Amino acid sequence: MSSTELAREIATIAGRAREAALIVAKSSAEERRRALEFTAAAVRESATEIIEANARDLSAAESNGLGAAMIDRLRLSSERLEGIAEAIGEIAQMPDLIGRFEREEVRPNGLRVARMRIPLGVIAMIYESRPNVTTDAAALCIKSGNAVILRGGSEAFHSNQALGEAVCRGLARAGLPEYGAQVIPSTDRATVNLLLQRDQDIDLVIPRGGEGLIRFVTETSRIPVIQHYKGVCHLYVHQAADLDMALSIAENGKVQRPGVCNAVETILVDRAIADSFVSELCRRFAALGVEIRGDQTVCDIAGRLAGQAGTVVAAGDEDWTAEYLALIVAVRVVDGIGEAIDHIERYGSNHSEAIVTEDSEASERFVRQVGSSTVLVNASTRFADGGQLGLGAEIGISTTKLHAYGPMGAEGLTTTKFVVRGAGQIRQ
Amino acid sequence: MSSTELAREIATIAGRAREAALIVAKSSAEERRRALEFTAAAVRESATEIIEANARDLSAAESNGLGAAMIDRLRLSSERLEGIAEAIGEIAQMPDLIGRFEREEVRPNGLRVARMRIPLGVIAMIYESRPNVTTDAAALCIKSGNAVILRGGSEAFHSNQALGEAVCRGLARAGLPEYGAQVIPSTDRATVNLLLQRDQDIDLVIPRGGEGLIRFVTETSRIPVIQHYKGVCHLYVHQAADLDMALSIAENGKVQRPGVCNAVETILVDRAIADSFVSELCRRFAALGVEIRGDQTVCDIAGRLAGQAGTVVAAGDEDWTAEYLALIVAVRVVDGIGEAIDHIERYGSNHSEAIVTEDSEASERFVRQVGSSTVLVNASTRFADGGQLGLGAEIGISTTKLHAYGPMGAEGLTTTKFVVRGAGQIRQ
Repeated sequence: MSSTELAREIATIAGRAREAALIVAKSSAEERRRALEFTAAAVRESATEIIEANARDLSAAESNGLGAAMIDRLRLSSERLEGIAEAIGEIAQMPDLIGRFEREEVRPNGLRVARMRIPLGVIAMIYESRPNVTTDAAALCIKSGNAVILRGGSEAFHSNQALGEAVCRGLARAGLPEYGAQVIPSTDRATVNLLLQRDQDIDLVIPRGGEGLIRFVTETSRIPVIQHYKGVCHLYVHQAADLDMALSIAENGKVQRPGVCNAVETILVDRAIADSFVSELCRRFAALGVEIRGDQTVCDIAGRLAGQAGTVVAAGDEDWTAEYLALIVAVRVVDGIGEAIDHIERYGSNHSEAIVTEDSEASERFVRQVGSSTVLVNASTRFADGGQLGLGAEIGISTTKLHAYGPMGAEGLTTTKFVVRGAGQIRQ
Repeated sequence: MSSTELAREIATIAGRAREAALIVAKSSAEERRRALEFTAAAVRESATEIIEANARDLSAAESNGLGAAMIDRLRLSSERLEGIAEAIGEIAQMPDLIGRFEREEVRPNGLRVARMRIPLGVIAMIYESRPNVTTDAAALCIKSGNAVILRGGSEAFHSNQALGEAVCRGLARAGLPEYGAQVIPSTDRATVNLLLQRDQDIDLVIPRGGEGLIRFVTETSRIPVIQHYKGVCHLYVHQAADLDMALSIAENGKVQRPGVCNAVETILVDRAIADSFVSELCRRFAALGVEIRGDQTVCDIAGRLAGQAGTVVAAGDEDWTAEYLALIVAVRVVDGIGEAIDHIERYGSNHSEAIVTEDSEASERFVRQVGSSTVLVNASTRFADGGQLGLGAEIGISTTKLHAYGPMGAEGLTTTKFVVRGAGQIRQ
């Protein structure tokens, strides 16, 4: 396609999304629920075609020399496809938010002022790799009354097209416009730039992928962008912590799934309990194969353990901002909660931070003064996730402080309008 | 200043705002309240200096040939200054939102999940003309725990500087950082571009002014922008309307203050009642000096009134999208509520629309299907205003569907973070 044709194509897609959004916004909760159940059925019915499309992506990935982990993320087995259909069905069953009235109050002149929850309009998702994002994002957007434009990574191109067709069939069967969910039929990188200029037709852009993608989208877009750069999550073990609980939360945060954004990357330990806690941590992490990057105190404690400590090396400045996504953790001893909060403020990424303590004054201070999007007390950072927090499903985690901050589910794809009911009041 | 020096200056201002924001976010409600009361006192104490600074702006405006209306908007009398101090005092007395817990729920695993209201961080206001925006915006930002950077129009430069100094003194006296509110000390247009690149330090940009300014900011900014383009507000007179009420709301919407964004610009009238309502409207508006731009039916009805109608001319296409801000109104006859909603969808600006009807089915449909940020039933569009809707004060009206849509007060300058309290839960 020439660049003029491509620009025209993207303008057409964006314009159709805007028209579809007006119709989806006026649909009933029942229509949206049915559209998603028809979509789940369409995924199951088209399983063969979707797996064939996925096979084309897989063979391209292999000839392009993609790593085994990447290829595994890309692969759609019939079991994974059933998981995708089930996830759509779960979103279908979530309570509907659109049209809900919130916080009604009566003004002195008798006007009744309420807020009604409404969709944002048109969402553009720009993402990499896993094809299930196509259906997850489409389902959440439709559930919340929006239209969506999906631009996945080129390595999942055929899989995304096939999944997108299933969503369109689901919409059409429920009597909703099939343009309510459109997968961009091109892998040309220029489509991203073109999309980001359509601020008349698109209300919000959600990039999901590496830091480079997110930075590019933020710098190019005329449309508001929900950013999620990285998760440098902290666990702070306060001097009044239950140390067994702290160890168990440290292990869960670092080891259960090290490659995700809500894994613990830095542990801060109060000096008063450093000897006993750091010793235990070194022993536990040695057994689990976790490398520790420690400050001087941590290295000294580990040195006294002789053979019981695993790999403990001196941390450099870059370790305090590292998102390892691996079995490595930075550990630092701090002089109390003030220093812990300062460290998080300086090196953190506004994602998720946990404190372990039995002292409620300390936990209150931590909750109030740490500005991150999820703050946890005596619980693992791994709970910073839309499903775990009760949002039903998540479209991403926002580290931009806007209407959505932290895990974003269907509600993060809505806003409210004012509804004012009177009896003929005029302004004096 | 050279462009390198200017860039360095703006970077310093933005960095100081970020540092101040961290401190203001942790301040107590009492400290923020005191800061605003000290600011109101500082405005009163410095009345002479502020009026002198304003006199410099006024004489520059006169030699630059500014219109009388513009000069009046710019003028600060001691009475207006007292109004400014009172407005700051009112914001000081508003209930504080920061740290408020919302929607606590318990997950099946016993985790208690709540949302805590927090400030956005650093707000940049870019505005034109009226100097009172300097103190209104600063007071709302501080009340809601934010830091603010203010970049007013060059015609109010000295007035804004003097008002900004009063805010800084108020902050300092309350023990808060004076950099919590900074007025940019330059009228160089390049400062706006430079500010809009500081996405690491600024969380939200709010432009207030003409469409050109808002478009420029949107196209240039890397930071999320709250847009408020224009208000093409509609009044829809349904066939089941109380016609006296409809006339009174039409008059209030058009005449009480025609130059504001929530004034009525288009009236849609159901065909079933067009004869009687349009006749009455023509008579009433003739007496008030309001020009009508009508469709064919309206012109025909007016023609039959002979001398009783005022100026009634045929509307062109451009009248349906016009924000007159003057004693002119477009009037169109529609075939029922569906056509009225379609008209608003096609020509409206997502600001405010009112329906007058005694039929609750019609008003419900209007409320649910009109996507504008304020929808009113049997009340004047002039109520679409933060103060009138109970927000206390407003920093602007958002026609961007993001976390704030419609009139934005202190709450529109906040978001929420998740707070999770457990008893050692780890993820399975």
